[in-house]
Amino acid sequence: MNNNYDIKDFALADQGRERIEWALTEMPVLRAIHDRFAKQRPLAGARISACLHITTETANLARTLKAGGAELVLCASNPLSTQDDVAAALVQHYQIPTFAIRGEDDGTYYRHIAKALDHRPQLTMDDGADLVSELHKNRSDLLAEVIGGTEETTTGVIRLRAMAADGALKFPVIAVNDAMTKHLFDNRYGTGQSTLDGIIRATNILLAGKTFTVAGYGWCGRGIAMRAKGHGAQVIITEVEPLRALEAAMDGFRVMPMLEAAAISDFIVTATGDKHVLDKAHFEVIKDGCVIANSGHFNVEINIPALEKLAVTKHRPRTGVEAYQLKDGRIVRLLAEGRLVNLAAAEGHPATVMDMSFANQALSIAYLWEQGRNLEHAVHPVPVDIDQQVAVMKLAAMRLSIDSLSPEQQAYLSSWKEGT
Amino acid sequence: MNNNYDIKDFALADQGRERIEWALTEMPVLRAIHDRFAKQRPLAGARISACLHITTETANLARTLKAGGAELVLCASNPLSTQDDVAAALVQHYQIPTFAIRGEDDGTYYRHIAKALDHRPQLTMDDGADLVSELHKNRSDLLAEVIGGTEETTTGVIRLRAMAADGALKFPVIAVNDAMTKHLFDNRYGTGQSTLDGIIRATNILLAGKTFTVAGYGWCGRGIAMRAKGHGAQVIITEVEPLRALEAAMDGFRVMPMLEAAAISDFIVTATGDKHVLDKAHFEVIKDGCVIANSGHFNVEINIPALEKLAVTKHRPRTGVEAYQLKDGRIVRLLAEGRLVNLAAAEGHPATVMDMSFANQALSIAYLWEQGRNLEHAVHPVPVDIDQQVAVMKLAAMRLSIDSLSPEQQAYLSSWKEGT
Amino acid sequence: MNNNYDIKDFALADQGRERIEWALTEMPVLRAIHDRFAKQRPLAGARISACLHITTETANLARTLKAGGAELVLCASNPLSTQDDVAAALVQHYQIPTFAIRGEDDGTYYRHIAKALDHRPQLTMDDGADLVSELHKNRSDLLAEVIGGTEETTTGVIRLRAMAADGALKFPVIAVNDAMTKHLFDNRYGTGQSTLDGIIRATNILLAGKTFTVAGYGWCGRGIAMRAKGHGAQVIITEVEPLRALEAAMDGFRVMPMLEAAAISDFIVTATGDKHVLDKAHFEVIKDGCVIANSGHFNVEINIPALEKLAVTKHRPRTGVEAYQLKDGRIVRLLAEGRLVNLAAAEGHPATVMDMSFANQALSIAYLWEQGRNLEHAVHPVPVDIDQQVAVMKLAAMRLSIDSLSPEQQAYLSSWKEGT
Amino acid sequence: MNNNYDIKDFALADQGRERIEWALTEMPVLRAIHDRFAKQRPLAGARISACLHITTETANLARTLKAGGAELVLCASNPLSTQDDVAAALVQHYQIPTFAIRGEDDGTYYRHIAKALDHRPQLTMDDGADLVSELHKNRSDLLAEVIGGTEETTTGVIRLRAMAADGALKFPVIAVNDAMTKHLFDNRYGTGQSTLDGIIRATNILLAGKTFTVAGYGWCGRGIAMRAKGHGAQVIITEVEPLRALEAAMDGFRVMPMLEAAAISDFIVTATGDKHVLDKAHFEVIKDGCVIANSGHFNVEINIPALEKLAVTKHRPRTGVEAYQLKDGRIVRLLAEGRLVNLAAAEGHPATVMDMSFANQALSIAYLWEQGRNLEHAVHPVPVDIDQQVAVMKLAAMRLSIDSLSPEQQAYLSSWKEGT
Repeated sequence: MNNNYDIKDFALADQGRERIEWALTEMPVLRAIHDRFAKQRPLAGARISACLHITTETANLARTLKAGGAELVLCASNPLSTQDDVAAALVQHYQIPTFAIRGEDDGTYYRHIAKALDHRPQLTMDDGADLVSELHKNRSDLLAEVIGGTEETTTGVIRLRAMAADGALKFPVIAVNDAMTKHLFDNRYGTGQSTLDGIIRATNILLAGKTFTVAGYGWCGRGIAMRAKGHGAQVIITEVEPLRALEAAMDGFRVMPMLEAAAISDFIVTATGDKHVLDKAHFEVIKDGCVIANSGHFNVEINIPALEKLAVTKHRPRTGVEAYQLKDGRIVRLLAEGRLVNLAAAEGHPATVMDMSFANQALSIAYLWEQGRNLEHAVHPVPVDIDQQVAVMKLAAMRLSIDSLSPEQQAYLSSWKEGT
Repeated sequence: MNNNYDIKDFALADQGRERIEWALTEMPVLRAIHDRFAKQRPLAGARISACLHITTETANLARTLKAGGAELVLCASNPLSTQDDVAAALVQHYQIPTFAIRGEDDGTYYRHIAKALDHRPQLTMDDGADLVSELHKNRSDLLAEVIGGTEETTTGVIRLRAMAADGALKFPVIAVNDAMTKHLFDNRYGTGQSTLDGIIRATNILLAGKTFTVAGYGWCGRGIAMRAKGHGAQVIITEVEPLRALEAAMDGFRVMPMLEAAAISDFIVTATGDKHVLDKAHFEVIKDGCVIANSGHFNVEINIPALEKLAVTKHRPRTGVEAYQLKDGRIVRLLAEGRLVNLAAAEGHPATVMDMSFANQALSIAYLWEQGRNLEHAVHPVPVDIDQQVAVMKLAAMRLSIDSLSPEQQAYLSSWKEGT
Repeated sequence: MNNNYDIKDFALADQGRERIEWALTEMPVLRAIHDRFAKQRPLAGARISACLHITTETANLARTLKAGGAELVLCASNPLSTQDDVAAALVQHYQIPTFAIRGEDDGTYYRHIAKALDHRPQLTMDDGADLVSELHKNRSDLLAEVIGGTEETTTGVIRLRAMAADGALKFPVIAVNDAMTKHLFDNRYGTGQSTLDGIIRATNILLAGKTFTVAGYGWCGRGIAMRAKGHGAQVIITEVEPLRALEAAMDGFRVMPMLEAAAISDFIVTATGDKHVLDKAHFEVIKDGCVIANSGHFNVEINIPALEKLAVTKHRPRTGVEAYQLKDGRIVRLLAEGRLVNLAAAEGHPATVMDMSFANQALSIAYLWEQGRNLEHAVHPVPVDIDQQVAVMKLAAMRLSIDSLSPEQQAYLSSWKEGT
Repeated sequence: MNNNYDIKDFALADQGRERIEWALTEMPVLRAIHDRFAKQRPLAGARISACLHITTETANLARTLKAGGAELVLCASNPLSTQDDVAAALVQHYQIPTFAIRGEDDGTYYRHIAKALDHRPQLTMDDGADLVSELHKNRSDLLAEVIGGTEETTTGVIRLRAMAADGALKFPVIAVNDAMTKHLFDNRYGTGQSTLDGIIRATNILLAGKTFTVAGYGWCGRGIAMRAKGHGAQVIITEVEPLRALEAAMDGFRVMPMLEAAAISDFIVTATGDKHVLDKAHFEVIKDGCVIANSGHFNVEINIPALEKLAVTKHRPRTGVEAYQLKDGRIVRLLAEGRLVNLAAAEGHPATVMDMSFANQALSIAYLWEQGRNLEHAVHPVPVDIDQQVAVMKLAAMRLSIDSLSPEQQAYLSSWKEGT
């Protein structure tokens, strides 16, 4: 393994660059930050090790940090999500050291993280906290130099909070996931569109007139329900929280237990965060031909082992589809082996959505470089004005202007808040 | 003034009862609580003074408390909101002492509150904190007997928090307004439908194909926008918060400053909580014939004095509509003198929405009667399981069943929360 | 009875004028025609007898014809639809002879038609063909002078076609009802909004989360379904035509027989044109508390006698609502005694919708005055370029511009039509 | 060339069968006809030559005809639409002679038609009238045996009507395209979903919050607009017909000329049937980054030569996308070279939609076999009860039941139709 990279194939570099540039056209906020960083060089000299999904959007984040003066090394945060053409382009066209090969084994995965740590980071970026974890466990010699880090995911934030609670976390980390401009947008609009996209690509079935059940009415479930309705389907929501169930009903959806829904649905998508939302009992009554898919993070929402047991035959009628035949002849059609259908059967979140998320990343890293030494060794929220700034930049990129409060209106609001 | 009542006209009592019974049919949760209270008598012997809008829905709340064993006296929380037939029915058909006359003057208003306080309440109910305020200011001799109170509105909660901060509040108060089953529902669904209802009753104009601007994309604004879109209008949102503006755009609405919106809108509705959202500058460019209305709490959102100044003539083409003619001939059509259009031109929140709010009231009062002595003299949230219980009862009333977590699923969620 | 008018009360004239002027603001197409007619006087000297609903919109049509030079006499086309303030204003403020009193008995109704015929019309206008019928039956002496007439309704057109088929029709009649700019708009958008308006005014019930059944998926049913969905209701369609049922399902609605729908609906509205769509069998299973209403032309869609028979008690909880209690305690709530709920409980079609209909009337009358002598004694469609012209004027009034075909594009379309 | 087939590669046959079976699951009406045909053998002995797109859906139509007893030969109706795996499966697994190779040259194309005609058809099936045309021009010796034919497309119908008008058509042809159960469904629901699918696959851009223009508000345009709105886009309609423009506005869409729309749109899709709907003038003002696509039948709606001329560079950032850079730096992103984006970038109409179309085909062919000798040599509509029957079968397949008229209701309707 080279010290500067470990990628699959440089022949893919040109294609990677095309795709990276395409994504950039949908990332105007990050582009604006890139241009500002290129002028102001706020990260001049900062050594960053970043363990992220190696995608076109991440490439644009990396370019932005580099434009800001950072010395950046990238490794993959998941062995399956690496886009090899992007990795090749990062090294060849953008001169950013990258260690990532799609389908790499566990050993390679951790060697890649090790390579990224050899960079002796002053700042870290993580998507699941594997890099921070390795750093604390096996490379604690490097900790003294680390000023701070960012974390993209809920899962990572949970791990880091546990570390902080134990007093084990040795530098401050900003939870990018919690920014309003991230979680209010990617789940509803990103997951909504891409989940439907995945289902349609996998099946090419007309949704109009079909009964479409969404398990879970959280942000993701709302996004999926909204888009399924937008395709002309009749949407059913299943929930375990009474309040969300009420909202779903008030929003015009049918609400019922999954056992009833399964018997009449043409499509069922899970988005709950829990396991076995579709279970043996549901398969026993499920409508013949029903298409089932998962849009939650882990592939445990559908109890596939239970389905395998009930099935007498199984075959693959289309890419990404397994048709299980049950004893009584009914067919259950499982998409993408129960993995995130928007990533497995489509392309995941569109770049527009990652634009806001990664703008928060870039600005948070710059903030840490400046202020990190003054922060407690804990998990911190994205500073409110970074969040606000991202919203303002996004509006500007969409060419939307809005009103602002006059001093008189500002005063009225404040006085009202005081109860007059 | 009688010691047991002061109402307008007993001849209205029968009509009042009809309307109260009608509202009850849309208040299944309160009805269920009524039935339980009638059996269990959880408020046996409790003296309650309640200062609330004297409406059909309040009458049903009062009946519920009485069924629970309470000795209840009612007075009006606003001189203009009293429904005289309801007041008559409360006294005549339900034997609940009531002091309320629509259009009563300030002196009478406070004498009515005094009458309610003469009851020596152990529990108070308020809608704007006037009763609690009078109690602390002028009847502090009664304070020793008071166990606790509830408050329905944001405004009241603000006043009470200020009192608590000064150490002036002498008993615990529960802020019913903050229950999820209240504020998540009444603003979106209640305000949404009733605002459009008010506009259509006042104007009888077809909304399909019209340009309809909503100022503010908070819960109320969302409800109004959703329903205007549901009528086939093309909806524009104006906002001062970038994040909300972004959400509005992502939800498919046009977003622009009011100065641009005013020039192209057939309807403008304000729902911001701020003053002068429609101001002189907007009237100077507003589209000829534009209908303007307010759905925010106070009638300051539209700068009516500025409009009066710009106008050369003014007349009343329909009940609830003032047509102002400007110098250049343009007409601006103001509804309900800028007061809450859903109350002034329609009937306010439908009973279904008040059902959940008042269910929280009834259960909170019972909770205070049992636990109030143990609570700090502060403003408290509605206990989470009351909120949850209301949601569960509402679902049951709608005949909706939902899933529940299996022990295995419960365990998975917990363990996930612990980061495994 | 005066020779120039028979109306209720001149004291109502000012209010009538206000309301007529208000309606005019929503009738920009008719206004434009009025202005053109005032200049060009295309109807100079034409004697017109018009038997129409005496409403604010009709008043504006009458003013337009008068501005065009016509000598016009009006009488009511239905004893119940006359707005007495409008009738008063027509005579007092607009000097248009009018014979119409709300609630007039049958004798008066026909005497009023006779008065209108005494005018010796050269052109007739009808809404149900009563005037034409009287003319042929009892005043055939006047036929020689009649050049032609217009008819507004389907029902009238059917009667006239029957007359024409028998060779009995003695002058040409234009069927305004069939203009695209009439029937494509008033049923969908007008009936849709006003039906929901009527239901909400009568009940003040929140629609969000309710189950709302529409019987019939014709133009009216579509309009109602669209708006009920726009209020957050869950909509069910019942149909007898398989094709329409399919369309309803493809549009995302639930489709089922009325017997199933009745058992789960909170609202049922009929819009089929047939009788007993809600019948004994449905009342036997109907959901407790269900609100039922009719939006079809005649009040036979709901079998009210059957309901009366099943009921043990009946009372009137709100204006426009009858609550029938069945033996087992279930309540059925009938609106407006089964008559057109949008007229009986709200204000019927908004002026915007009548604008296009009456623009077709005005232009068709002018066309008949010019061309009527050359037309067969039959029922004729509105000339295509009148229909087109109305659409163009409406777009202009809405300040919408559209594209036009270039000569090259025109040529392409024609050649394509020839199959090259 | 074999006498029984000319296909690309038998190795593809198994995959073809999988895909044909998958499509069959979404074609329940055709499946029901298949089962009836298999029992009743209504086409026993009929020789059919069919010139159709060789797709999975066509394969299921062919299987149905064969099950009915027909001796069927297939050839391709377009050199580019053949799915080679389907062709292989037809020959190998279903024993249906097939002549079709994707990308075949013109000579081969016509040789394949000749092979199909060598079968000496008694019935013909066409998609564009090429087979009928060849038959009349070059194989008139076969005409005597032909009983009748069907035609799937508008284009074909136009050609055949021209032939009939000249007295040149020598047997009756049924225009399947005109069945209500075909054209009311495939354009709105099929084109709607598949056009959005094509755009999202090609670009992976988030539609929520974007401005999306649809040129043309015919059935296709409506379908596309409906789905774009369902994705959260803000939709603009451009039209040349005033009436359709009005409907679009009433349906809540913005309406404006293309010159204005182009300047503010993120997406533009043409669906007009005309040429140069997007032309030089529009490219001169088009918004930077705008994605343009065509969903009309021919690739002339976008003036690509004009775009090529204006562009200074052109490259292919993603499969199916050409990015043209204009002089001033603006980028225009053309999808699928202006060809039907739902076919070129996605999979065309879902099987559900073809189900109804091909059910009409199968039943029309059986009708011709029985009745063709009695029909005039002209273009005939699909018999109404076939159309109706398809609707009924589709509803049954969707497990939807509907009401039927009682004799009393039937009588009421008839009498009303007679004007009583």
